[in-house]
Amino acid sequence: MIVSASDIEKLDSRVRAALINSLPSVKPALLLGTQSAKGQTNLCVINSCFHVGANPALLGFILRPNPHGVERHSLDNILTSQRMTLNAITDAMVSRAHHTSARFPRNVSEFNACGFTASFLKDFNAPFVSESPLKIGLKLAEHQLLAINGTHLIIGAVDHVEFMDTAWREDGSLDLATMGIVGCVGLDSYHSIGDGQRFAYAKADRSPETL
Amino acid sequence: MIVSASDIEKLDSRVRAALINSLPSVKPALLLGTQSAKGQTNLCVINSCFHVGANPALLGFILRPNPHGVERHSLDNILTSQRMTLNAITDAMVSRAHHTSARFPRNVSEFNACGFTASFLKDFNAPFVSESPLKIGLKLAEHQLLAINGTHLIIGAVDHVEFMDTAWREDGSLDLATMGIVGCVGLDSYHSIGDGQRFAYAKADRSPETL
Repeated sequence: MIVSASDIEKLDSRVRAALINSLPSVKPALLLGTQSAKGQTNLCVINSCFHVGANPALLGFILRPNPHGVERHSLDNILTSQRMTLNAITDAMVSRAHHTSARFPRNVSEFNACGFTASFLKDFNAPFVSESPLKIGLKLAEHQLLAINGTHLIIGAVDHVEFMDTAWREDGSLDLATMGIVGCVGLDSYHSIGDGQRFAYAKADRSPETL
Repeated sequence: MIVSASDIEKLDSRVRAALINSLPSVKPALLLGTQSAKGQTNLCVINSCFHVGANPALLGFILRPNPHGVERHSLDNILTSQRMTLNAITDAMVSRAHHTSARFPRNVSEFNACGFTASFLKDFNAPFVSESPLKIGLKLAEHQLLAINGTHLIIGAVDHVEFMDTAWREDGSLDLATMGIVGCVGLDSYHSIGDGQRFAYAKADRSPETL
């Protein structure tokens, strides 16, 4: 079936949000860890992370702050500390990770409320999720308010990465399936991934080759 | 193991690209369809698509054009026609879809070279991939050259969406597993997704509930 822009506008707002959030297809599911100037930790699930560049190593994501939401706390913390962490979510973490999207009061840390353990690295004032097998420390590199809809584009420079030694292949890629890392669909659905199929660098004069 | 920013800088460029592209975890795998003013169609695989907003319905992605690459053709076409399509990739399409990343000459359409069929909607001058079960037509809404690394941020407004009737749930979400849609890891790995686990809207005063 074809759903047009005017059909989409007429949808109930929750139905529209569920549909449009399904369109990017399989999305990253990551926990964003931040800390306030007073040391209050915050954690929220995001699924808009994307690759910006490898040299320098940059990752981007979108935050949609609202006056009472957890993403407001995250944005405030990022702008103050200039630091944040992204932590991949595994099968064993999905129930607790999704729960970080609830509106907890500002004085409650989602680490405590949802059952995660905060860990820290020296001279890096943002909390990591101990339970995650893939942890990324980012320094704020760019912040833009997108005029088109009032959301915030955050670009972070990779400061360091921590992962299972055995998941790093010789070619540099990470084996996410081995680490149990899940993908996300829409607003509320978390999916294990299969072992996958890898392909050689594509060349115009050759047929596709699996690795 | 912990890999620091200075360790990352010292990596061989291909190893670094493979590692950094693995960090966002499970990413969308979509075919970007465009058309030149002369009617030459172009297709390339992208994995940086992200949700920007549901009302208005907006999707974003990053293009990294280089003088000879397919993404240069895509960017030129988008800026000229102001239209583009995103087409989800299924298990049956992954080998052909990955092959669109090869550097075909400008006068060769990746539709022909890789074995896909272009389809068109009236008054919309960008080609859809007939074989895809989830097709999205976008109008260019914003284009920014990101000064931080010379890549291009494209934001498109959803003009219409086409998908399998049976994959649309009553709550508005799409069942991607039913459509056989895959996720992507790194630069070259494509993964089927399991049925997944869905959770109710999270509330601070309730335990997580599966749907």
